[in-house]
Order: sequence, then structure tokens, then C-alpha cells
Amino acid sequence: MRKVASSWLRKILLLLHQEKVVTRVRILEVTGLNHASVSIAVNHLLKHGVIMKLGDMDSRIGRKRELFGLHPEAGYFLGVDLESTRISFAVGNLVGDMRYRWEEDLPLRQPLDARVVFKGVDKLLRRLTTYQRSRVLAMGICYPGLLDPEGRLTAYNLELNGVPLLAEFTKLAAVHDVSDISVFLESDKRCSLLAEHCAGGRRDLEDALLLLVGRGIGLSVVVGGQLVEGWRGMAGEIGHMTVEPDAPDLCACGKRGCLEAVASSPNIVRQYLELTGIQSDDMRGVRVTHVYDKAREGDPIAKQVLRRVGRALGLALSHTATLLNPRNIILAGDIVAGEDVMLPIISEEMKANLLPATFAALELSVSDLGPDFRLSGAIALAFSHSLADPVLLHRMCNLKQVPGELTESAAGARSSQLGVRTKAKKNRFVSADSSPG
Amino acid sequence: MRKVASSWLRKILLLLHQEKVVTRVRILEVTGLNHASVSIAVNHLLKHGVIMKLGDMDSRIGRKRELFGLHPEAGYFLGVDLESTRISFAVGNLVGDMRYRWEEDLPLRQPLDARVVFKGVDKLLRRLTTYQRSRVLAMGICYPGLLDPEGRLTAYNLELNGVPLLAEFTKLAAVHDVSDISVFLESDKRCSLLAEHCAGGRRDLEDALLLLVGRGIGLSVVVGGQLVEGWRGMAGEIGHMTVEPDAPDLCACGKRGCLEAVASSPNIVRQYLELTGIQSDDMRGVRVTHVYDKAREGDPIAKQVLRRVGRALGLALSHTATLLNPRNIILAGDIVAGEDVMLPIISEEMKANLLPATFAALELSVSDLGPDFRLSGAIALAFSHSLADPVLLHRMCNLKQVPGELTESAAGARSSQLGVRTKAKKNRFVSADSSPG
Repeated sequence: MRKVASSWLRKILLLLHQEKVVTRVRILEVTGLNHASVSIAVNHLLKHGVIMKLGDMDSRIGRKRELFGLHPEAGYFLGVDLESTRISFAVGNLVGDMRYRWEEDLPLRQPLDARVVFKGVDKLLRRLTTYQRSRVLAMGICYPGLLDPEGRLTAYNLELNGVPLLAEFTKLAAVHDVSDISVFLESDKRCSLLAEHCAGGRRDLEDALLLLVGRGIGLSVVVGGQLVEGWRGMAGEIGHMTVEPDAPDLCACGKRGCLEAVASSPNIVRQYLELTGIQSDDMRGVRVTHVYDKAREGDPIAKQVLRRVGRALGLALSHTATLLNPRNIILAGDIVAGEDVMLPIISEEMKANLLPATFAALELSVSDLGPDFRLSGAIALAFSHSLADPVLLHRMCNLKQVPGELTESAAGARSSQLGVRTKAKKNRFVSADSSPG
Repeated sequence: MRKVASSWLRKILLLLHQEKVVTRVRILEVTGLNHASVSIAVNHLLKHGVIMKLGDMDSRIGRKRELFGLHPEAGYFLGVDLESTRISFAVGNLVGDMRYRWEEDLPLRQPLDARVVFKGVDKLLRRLTTYQRSRVLAMGICYPGLLDPEGRLTAYNLELNGVPLLAEFTKLAAVHDVSDISVFLESDKRCSLLAEHCAGGRRDLEDALLLLVGRGIGLSVVVGGQLVEGWRGMAGEIGHMTVEPDAPDLCACGKRGCLEAVASSPNIVRQYLELTGIQSDDMRGVRVTHVYDKAREGDPIAKQVLRRVGRALGLALSHTATLLNPRNIILAGDIVAGEDVMLPIISEEMKANLLPATFAALELSVSDLGPDFRLSGAIALAFSHSLADPVLLHRMCNLKQVPGELTESAAGARSSQLGVRTKAKKNRFVSADSSPG
């Protein structure tokens, strides 16, 4: 039997992840592989239970066509989203579906405690059966702000300044029993793009903007298919764009008039509480979805607040589109739950502020991935690294390890240890290891 | 004698154009060529009078080092700048110095008349001696707005919508005696970058913004060394960013609150005239430099107008820097003449609106190329194409034509005809020719 190449498996697994159900013809079409390679790879994946036959489809010429999909239980990935004042956790299966999702609220303006992350991971792992636990391949962690090459995190809206995230994780992983799980860290901007690419199946993001609206507001800027990082990695800080210079709303960064101070989820709730006069104690735990619901019911205060929010978002996106002339603008995060209320206001504001040709050229939409967009991104991060890493790919596909391939990636050899990796500019990796105690 | 390679000549001529005076050591250092290649190329260029020895410099180890520079009269380039309501013309020599510069004012809101361009070119050529005329290699034309693949120009601030620029030029060139001059068209955004690279000697424009302030306002956005063009070629339209949503100033595009409606040169003059109550007839031909001078003399109205203008520019640049985190911001065009008045206001506004880290990372400066920045760019366009085109390079350097090299570029074979070329996305060229009647 001919040897199966890792690159064939990678292409086929990514396609199945993106499209869920495919035929052999579709695999040939998208991957560009030849018949023999697809046949060998598909048979290998079927034999080892990584993919499965889902049924048959009648083709136009009367021949049955087999339908394939990933076997959901063939691999598990942990996702952690460090978002401002809460941390979200989930297990994703090979299809990308989330299980055991929950979140921990953190006290406001407290430095991030890495122990909370590992406690959460313990909790995740305890929910898994022995079989499932043995198939956990990797963990993806989505961070806001900027991780420097030494692994220190700085994020203005979290009031984090140089938190030694990488060092803390390395120390704690030695204590907890997670030495078989590779850990990958990535910025929320890249995680969001990965989510759209892997889980959302979007291949058209060449000139695109992904706006994340949640506790904070960030923007992934894609120009010619590349994420724009900026001279010091601080591109996309749209949350700190001054949209209302004379506004009284004070931002966490210390400025007034920032987009985030008007349009982030906590600030939407704050404005609603201020204007209704409801004491915040009565409304503890009020979420932005409550304000969306109130607006749908016709509550004039909710409508007034969301009108201001939508106009601020629309203005900031207009500025961005005027500068970059994007093809796609995708809204993600909490705002997805308020699509029906917010999209018309944002679109109207953009139409008023853009040159007609710029407005006509762009497509404004919300992400299909729902409000857990960043968490999907963290899981997509773990998934995509598991495809890229020869050792993890071999574990996922029950391949015999081919020594030659292991040298493809120096990092691969460390998968029995904790491999915490941060991604520096242009896909270069900076690694740090610790022996598991 | 060993054959001299075109690539050696290109590298050396570009370096001499950028740095004006260089030693052999500097040539070796920057071009990466070896000693023998540099020696052959330098001797060839000296022999044919393209470069000349400017003197000697004592080196630290006591040896004399020869200094070389371009021979200014070894080649001439025509530059034409189609800027809104005026067209500027100049001849540039091989060093990049401008001669015979003038401009034609066009009536407001009239479609661009290609005949005016050719009349101006005739006027330029008549100023040259027979020797100089025989050394005119190429003409660069800098256009605002967007040229489509069929060579039709659309520019909102000129009220031009699909003007068939390329067709008109092709027709007229057949009538006028300019069939030996290659013509190149390029957007003002690319011309500006070329000006900074060729004439300004800037090699550090990796993450940069070039703001052009004149009759209109445009921005060249450079990310990772590449000009951002946008999905439909409309990136950088900062002049139509809404900076004062409630402003009464009406923009040529029909919107209110556009940056251009507040901060372009004609709008600075307009505001000054409106506030002083001076009838515009008394002040016909008032230029923005007059308003700068008045502000320097302490005129409160001039200061008030320029304060508003500087804050609008600073706010628009803040939005851009928040999104893109650039390293360099270079201001060019009319604003260069008001550097002392405008830069402090712009800088103060940016400091107020940017995250401290974004502000600290950027360098704000004005172009060394003066207010004729775009015209420098048009000449730099003709110069750089003359280096790139084998036929033009051979004419410039008195090379024997090497048949093999001519096939390098199909366009090269057409240099005896009019070669009007427009640059489409990603350096692909779209060409159109006409036989010279």
C-alpha cells in the first residue's frame, strides 16, 4: 500500500471541517490533489475512524456519490477566551461543535490570574470520558491586546500592562496534569480570522474587516489576504477611535469619546441603566441582550441608546472603509444577538458617510459563528495547529510516525511536553517549554 | 572588455539619484554588487557621460576616495500633474532637479481637456535646446482618482466621471511631435511614494502614511511595504472622511463634514475670506500661503481657520493611526509651506486622540520635496520607468542594444511609438499604442 502524505490529510481534513459534508468530486476540486492521492488518504481516514461515510447522493448522471464527513469524536480541542472581565472555556470536537461551554466572571480591574485559567481547564477535563480525554490534542488560548516576544501581555481595556502570561502558564502547566496537551496562544484578531476561515468556511476574506463587539471592541484588518499588524503590533485598535470628541463617556484608556466607551456591551448596559434610572443593584447581571430585547419591545430609552451605539459603530466603520475600501465587513461577538436592531442603523450611518462607490462595493454582514466567535477562534486555533503539527496530526489520524516528517517542525518533537507557543509577526513562532515536573 | 549588465546600471543610477554624491564603497554597500561589476558599470557610465567624478574625499585610513554623481544633462524627463483645477508641468533633469516649471489654472468644474496637457508639453519642449530635446526620455503623468483598465479617469473632487484619458492622449500624441517620448500614467498615491523613494531617498517606508494636502486631500497607505489599493482601488480617500458630522461645509462629493471640505487649500482660503468678509473679487488668486503668512503675523481670523484645519487633519490622521499603527506619517503638498503653523496643531490633536503607545511609535514629518511633491512624483515616475525599460535605459546610457534584453519587456519594443501605459493592480501593465500618424 502506498504511503499516505501528511499534506493530503491536512487539505482533506480542513475542507471537511469547513464544509461538513463533501463528495470525492468536491475534495478533488478544492484540494487540487489527484485521484490516487485522494483515494489513499480517504481510505486511510475511513479506516482509522477520523472520517465517516454519511450516505449517498444521486448525481446528475445517475451515479451514486458517497458523502463524507468528519467523525465528531475523533479529536477534541480546548478553547479558552481571555475576554476582558470574563474567561470563557469550551471543548470543541473535530467538527468544531462546542461542548461544555461556560465562563468565569472576573472582578473588574483585577490583574489576570493564570490560576483561574488552569482551574477552568481542570473543570473542562473532568467533564470528559476517559476515551475523550485521551483524544484531546491541543488547547487554543485567545488573548486580547498584545503579547510581546517574551510572552508578556498588555491590553489597555483590561488594564493589563506586561502580565507575564507565558511564564505563568508554563509554571502552572507543570503542576496540573496537562502535559500531553499542546498549548497555543494567539491574538483575538488572528483567532477571529481563523474562526471565519476554519469554522465559518470563508475563503473570500482578501480585503476584509472583522469587527468584534463585546466587552471591548477590536478590528481585524485584512489587506490583500494578510492581517495588518502595524509597526508595533497595535493595528486595529478601533475601540479607541475618537468617534464623539465631546462625549462625556470616559474610556478605560483614560480618553473621552472612544468608540468602546459608547458601544461596548458593558457601556450599552451602563447607558441604559443611567437613562432609565434603574439602580445598578437591581440590574446586576443585566446583559446587552436585555437592551436589545427592550428595543424590540419598543422601549424608547433602549432605542435611543442603541441608536447612538449604532451610529458610533457606523461612523468608525465609515472611517475605516474610506481609508481601506474593503470588500467584506463582518460583525462578530455580542452584537450578533442584536443583528436585527443594529445592522439597519449601522448601514444607514455608513451610507450617509461613505462615497457612493465605496459603499456600493462593500458587503456588511454578521458572522455565522454567533456571539461565541472568539471562543470558536480559540478552538479553531487548536484545530489548525493540530493539522500543521506533524506529531499532533499523526496522533489524530493514527499514523505510524515517520521520522523524516518529524524534523519538519522542531516544535513537533515537544508534543509530549507542554508546548506553549506564541505567534510573532509573519508566522514566525517563539517557543518556550517546561518539563512536566 | 566584459559586458555591462542592465541590472548593475539600474542599481547604481537609482542610488546616485537618491543620494546625489556617493563613493565606490557606498555603491558596493547599498547595491550588493561585487567589485568587478561596480568597476565595469562605473567605467561605462563615466565613459558615456551619464555620471561624473565630483572630487575626492579623504577616508579615515588616509586613502583618497572618489566621489561620483549623476551628470545632470545626461537625461531629461517631463512631469505633468493633473491636480484638480490646475495642471502643473516641469522638466526634470537626471539629478531630479526641476526646470521650466509652470502651471495652468483650469476653470472650476470643467471636464479635463487633454488638449491643455499637450499644449503644455509643446511649451515645455520649446524651452529645450536641440541637445536637451534629444535627451528627453519619458513623460510621467500623475492623475488624481482612479483610472480603470480601459484608461478612463474618475475623480470625485474634480467632478470627473469616466473621462477617456488614455484614448484622448493616444489621439493627441499622434498629432503632436512627441512620438519619441514614452508616456506613463500613474495615480497620485503611487507617484507620491515614488517621489519619496527616488527623489527623497526614503527607504524606510514600510508602514507609512503619506498625506497629500493641496486642492484635494489624499492618502497613500503603505502596509508592509505595499501600497494599499483596496477592493475597488479606492483606498486612501481620506479627503472624504467625515471629521465634522455637523459642519455646514459642503464637499464637492455632495456630503457635509468631509475633511477636504474643511482642510483643502481652496477651502482654507474660502473660510478665511468668509470670516474676514473680504469680497472674493478683491482676493482673486489668494493662495493658502497668504493665510499661513497672516497667521504668522498674528491675524486672529487666520489663526482660527488654521486651528480648525489642523484639528480636522489631526483627527483624520488619528483615526488612521488607530487603525493601522504606522511608523511614519509624511505630510506633503501645499501644507509643507505652512509646516511651522500646522504641525504643532496636528501633533497636539493626534496626541489627544491616540493611545499613548500608538502616538509614541510614530514619527510625524513633512516631505523634503516641498509643495511640488506630486510633480516630483511625475518626474520620478518617468525616471523610474526609464531605468526599468531596457530601450530607455539603453538610450540613457548609450548602450549598444542587446537583442536578448529587448525581449525582457514587450513594451520596450514600442519605444519608437507612443507607449501610454497605465498601471493596474500589483504591477501589471495594461498598454495601448497608436502609430504616430
